[in-house]
Amino acid sequence: MAGAHWGFCPWLVLLCACAWSHPKPGDLGREDVRNCSANPPHLPVTAVNTTARLSALRQQIEAWNLSAYIIPDTDAHKSEYIGKHDERRAWITGFKGTAGTAVVTMRKAAVWTDSRYWTQAEREMDCNWDLHKEDSWNSYDMNLQGSNIQLVSITTNLVDLVWGSERPLVPSEPIYALETAFTGSTWQEKVSNIRSQMQKHSKAPTAVLLTALDETAWLFNLRSSDIPYNPFFYSYTLLMDCSIRLFVNRSRFSPETLQYLNSGCTEPMCVQLEDYSQVRDSVQAYVSGDVRVWIGTQYTMYGLYEVIPEEKLVADTYSPVMITKAVKNSKEQALLKASHVRDAVAVIRYLVWLEKNVPKGTVDEFSGAEFMDQLRGKEDFFSGPSFQTISASGLNAALAHYSPTKELNRKLSSDEMYLVDSGGQYWDGTTDITRTVHWGTPSAFQKEAYTRVLMGNIDLSKLIFPAATSGRVLEAFARKALWDVGLNYGHGTGHGIGNFLCVHEWPVGFQTINIAMAKGMFTSIEPGYYHDGEFGIRIEDVALVVGAKTKYPGSYLTFEVVSFVPYDRNLIDVSLLSPEQLQHLNQYYQVIREKVGPELHRRQLLEEFEWLQRHTEPLSARAPHTASWASVLVASTLAILSWSS
Amino acid sequence: MAGAHWGFCPWLVLLCACAWSHPKPGDLGREDVRNCSANPPHLPVTAVNTTARLSALRQQIEAWNLSAYIIPDTDAHKSEYIGKHDERRAWITGFKGTAGTAVVTMRKAAVWTDSRYWTQAEREMDCNWDLHKEDSWNSYDMNLQGSNIQLVSITTNLVDLVWGSERPLVPSEPIYALETAFTGSTWQEKVSNIRSQMQKHSKAPTAVLLTALDETAWLFNLRSSDIPYNPFFYSYTLLMDCSIRLFVNRSRFSPETLQYLNSGCTEPMCVQLEDYSQVRDSVQAYVSGDVRVWIGTQYTMYGLYEVIPEEKLVADTYSPVMITKAVKNSKEQALLKASHVRDAVAVIRYLVWLEKNVPKGTVDEFSGAEFMDQLRGKEDFFSGPSFQTISASGLNAALAHYSPTKELNRKLSSDEMYLVDSGGQYWDGTTDITRTVHWGTPSAFQKEAYTRVLMGNIDLSKLIFPAATSGRVLEAFARKALWDVGLNYGHGTGHGIGNFLCVHEWPVGFQTINIAMAKGMFTSIEPGYYHDGEFGIRIEDVALVVGAKTKYPGSYLTFEVVSFVPYDRNLIDVSLLSPEQLQHLNQYYQVIREKVGPELHRRQLLEEFEWLQRHTEPLSARAPHTASWASVLVASTLAILSWSS
Repeated sequence: MAGAHWGFCPWLVLLCACAWSHPKPGDLGREDVRNCSANPPHLPVTAVNTTARLSALRQQIEAWNLSAYIIPDTDAHKSEYIGKHDERRAWITGFKGTAGTAVVTMRKAAVWTDSRYWTQAEREMDCNWDLHKEDSWNSYDMNLQGSNIQLVSITTNLVDLVWGSERPLVPSEPIYALETAFTGSTWQEKVSNIRSQMQKHSKAPTAVLLTALDETAWLFNLRSSDIPYNPFFYSYTLLMDCSIRLFVNRSRFSPETLQYLNSGCTEPMCVQLEDYSQVRDSVQAYVSGDVRVWIGTQYTMYGLYEVIPEEKLVADTYSPVMITKAVKNSKEQALLKASHVRDAVAVIRYLVWLEKNVPKGTVDEFSGAEFMDQLRGKEDFFSGPSFQTISASGLNAALAHYSPTKELNRKLSSDEMYLVDSGGQYWDGTTDITRTVHWGTPSAFQKEAYTRVLMGNIDLSKLIFPAATSGRVLEAFARKALWDVGLNYGHGTGHGIGNFLCVHEWPVGFQTINIAMAKGMFTSIEPGYYHDGEFGIRIEDVALVVGAKTKYPGSYLTFEVVSFVPYDRNLIDVSLLSPEQLQHLNQYYQVIREKVGPELHRRQLLEEFEWLQRHTEPLSARAPHTASWASVLVASTLAILSWSS
Repeated sequence: MAGAHWGFCPWLVLLCACAWSHPKPGDLGREDVRNCSANPPHLPVTAVNTTARLSALRQQIEAWNLSAYIIPDTDAHKSEYIGKHDERRAWITGFKGTAGTAVVTMRKAAVWTDSRYWTQAEREMDCNWDLHKEDSWNSYDMNLQGSNIQLVSITTNLVDLVWGSERPLVPSEPIYALETAFTGSTWQEKVSNIRSQMQKHSKAPTAVLLTALDETAWLFNLRSSDIPYNPFFYSYTLLMDCSIRLFVNRSRFSPETLQYLNSGCTEPMCVQLEDYSQVRDSVQAYVSGDVRVWIGTQYTMYGLYEVIPEEKLVADTYSPVMITKAVKNSKEQALLKASHVRDAVAVIRYLVWLEKNVPKGTVDEFSGAEFMDQLRGKEDFFSGPSFQTISASGLNAALAHYSPTKELNRKLSSDEMYLVDSGGQYWDGTTDITRTVHWGTPSAFQKEAYTRVLMGNIDLSKLIFPAATSGRVLEAFARKALWDVGLNYGHGTGHGIGNFLCVHEWPVGFQTINIAMAKGMFTSIEPGYYHDGEFGIRIEDVALVVGAKTKYPGSYLTFEVVSFVPYDRNLIDVSLLSPEQLQHLNQYYQVIREKVGPELHRRQLLEEFEWLQRHTEPLSARAPHTASWASVLVASTLAILSWSS
């Protein structure tokens, strides 16, 4: 998992000052967090001095005649992960958490973030900054709507002006084309497909504007490494009915890649390269004509959206590229599955290694995460982790988005549960899997909680549902086994995933704004349970949406799990499983054997092969009724024998 | 059930002509529907000649300088059921279906309605009218948004001008106060409650404007009979912080009722009566001051909404009266339950009567419905049916909203399934229940479909879920047993219900726009299955949302079913039920015996009492595994005996 988020429009500023609540002091009496009500204020060593930066920014705000300036946590593409040079909010505030928005006026400065980051913010910010909890942000946002405050966008980024030479450089690694073996269609086929959707659209758009980085990467089968964990490059695309403009730093293309985009093309299929910085002007020039531009409102930044006159805008929630990309064709499905088989090898090797080394006391959360990443590195076509590995032992696993650092981590122990949520970027697919394990004697409650999370995972995985059902109305099946006894989890149940693209790929998933389920989509299924201060459980698989055969004919779907790592037998209370759940589990284990067994054998990973056999042995119900009948049978038979002899 | 709908804003007209598609002819070659492409056009005897009416309306449209006029299917309160004098759309078009919107321009006239009503419209309309199917309406509506067509409201109703003396009179029956025995709180307590919510609201509204008829009826504990099936009276309320204005026809109050509203009151608790027709002017005058008016946007008509300046509007989806009314206090819960016990007596009497009379061939859908209504009439506190009884045999039950007429109905038979969906308005509560029965030998498919509908009803009824969960994410549990084999139903899973108020009481239910579930709400649970041209099944109960006791402490809810009529044993395939479903069903039957048995006894309805006992006998699983073990045991024992002898 990891917290997928979509920011709101960047580069927005307030033209009017707004009401501020009083500064909220950090926890009193703790040395590692700031205390701004002490005299003098207490600042931990981790706090960043932002006085000079803030003063420079305020000079800019004044010069631009603004009352306030908003600094969001995303980039111009609303990327989930952002490059170092886009970490403006972190630089200006000192607070490095991945979610949080800063607002600066001439007299006040504040950060809004959610509960996951409150402690971190109190450690990293100095007393120039107020910390507002999410609730405050909501009411602030609500209040703004009824007021005479006006949000305006400006094209210059004031933080960049202040950041100056300290700002990290914009990435400039080569942009490369994927080999044909790793693509589902040529970029020309994709362009034709999108153009045919433009023609069928009732509002007859003349162009599609692509602003999310994975849209352009997918369309042209191009990749690079500008963004951590995501193989993307800074770009926009204006795909028109008769021509194509790709906005990008041209110097990053090799002659071969340039040829790949334009060899022997005729006009509508030639890619005109324009500089990345020209996108706004270019779109503005285009919309002066008799055109209509199709955009996805869910993620197009306001700075581009605003240049398109309303009557020329064809606004859907998601662009046709997002919708088309969500459904993988048969080749893309095969590629994604193949990457999951190799990924399972890496995870199984890690689990075997943990089983041997944790009892020795030599593994901690950080070294474990590092080793997990190294093992993926041994797999073919590996390009890097798909997100920062979550490696959490004991109580740390109860923090849904915890990641260890070299300095701050916990030793793994046979006395504690351990959760590892990780994934890889491979040329053929992106992976994401979570397993939770215990090497000693789990408590009855831990076993029950784990088994109920597993039951939820199974119940959703094996659900049969009508085609085009929204994931939102299905996800409660992943919770029911927990709800039955008064347990639950506070995060979403799953997200889409790409072919060497985003690990959290919109718009597939189980949330309200996700689109309806269709054959060929991939989604994670990841129920969990988190017991504050004690332990955390999550069981995450990636599953393909497939057609279901039903007794009566109809258009029905179900899931086919493509993550191939067995669950921890030590944590499963088989007596809680229904016969259907047990049967489903054993069938899944059979599939794991068939898919991963030969691969382990081929690689001569014999210890791992044996481990896999042991851990995928069919589980059997204790079947108390059957057993008691058998006892009765034996007892009766003996009684009869003695009576008749 | 029955199709709850909420129209959009009435009294809206178009200032600009819009594009029209070509007229769609009725089915060719059928005598009972119109054929406008024949020469001369064929009109069935059921068609209404609207030429004169339409011509008169067009004179008005021209006189008002409008390009088009929209005639919606609801009244000024967006009521689900409307009075005869408000049936403008039916009068001007001839089409009497309850859902459908008419639009008239100088050259064209058209009706938009959904598939339930297409045949009826072709029977009742003459060739002055085009019939547009729902899809057309959607695209028409979408197209309007991007155009330069302007929707404006006018305060005069042009149809009424044309309707003239033919228009039925506005009802003028007395408005009466409910006896204290039938109310959960006094009206003064309710007013204080709402005022305290106004004070707590962040936007500090100074008044709440109530436009839905059940809001005013609930607030003052007043009732009348202006609307079919609903005990309401035409009214609006402006509940202010320091005074109360009730807009109503004053002559309908008796001196006692006037005293009930104003005896010994002090200013903030005195009810000022203003004429019903004055509401718009009165609200307009009020909003000239420093005030903020709180409304529910989901059902406030545009004609009132538009007089409130945006900055003085506090717009929530539902008014605080709607939200408060949704949660019944303990007295209201007891009242609603008591009405359901008596209602069960009426339904059981009907089922017993059918069992005896259907085999004689003397019952048809219409006479059955009439007898059902008569039986309810024998119950204490009965005030009328809560909606038109759906009494459908065989293939008619596959039409979700079918109701028989004296002229057009089907004979009930032991060879067919029969569905009866009906309810009553009692002074203590409103009821709504559906039972489906078969008196002969149902097919295996009918039994399976019925049992799976029942399994869905049980699975949702016994679900345990966190407090404040939206019904939308729960309702799939009512479908899963059907989905498993490729079956489903096309309507919602349930709706709120009132205490002698609406049978479809918003905002409770399982749809997207319903509010989250909370203790004290009542909702119907009504999965179904409809096999076109063959049969229809629906099993509907009303259930109270109650706290659930869970193994681990938490704030969890579940349902307590308060409809007390057993299901048809003849249609249940017990082997399909899980042990948990069977246990739940038998516990429910035990509750029915405890609640309804004594009432039948007291009333000396002995035949019904015995019927109830038979039909609530605990059901038992065939338990194939246990049985086979037993057989093995016997066989082994015999073998051993013969071997040893």
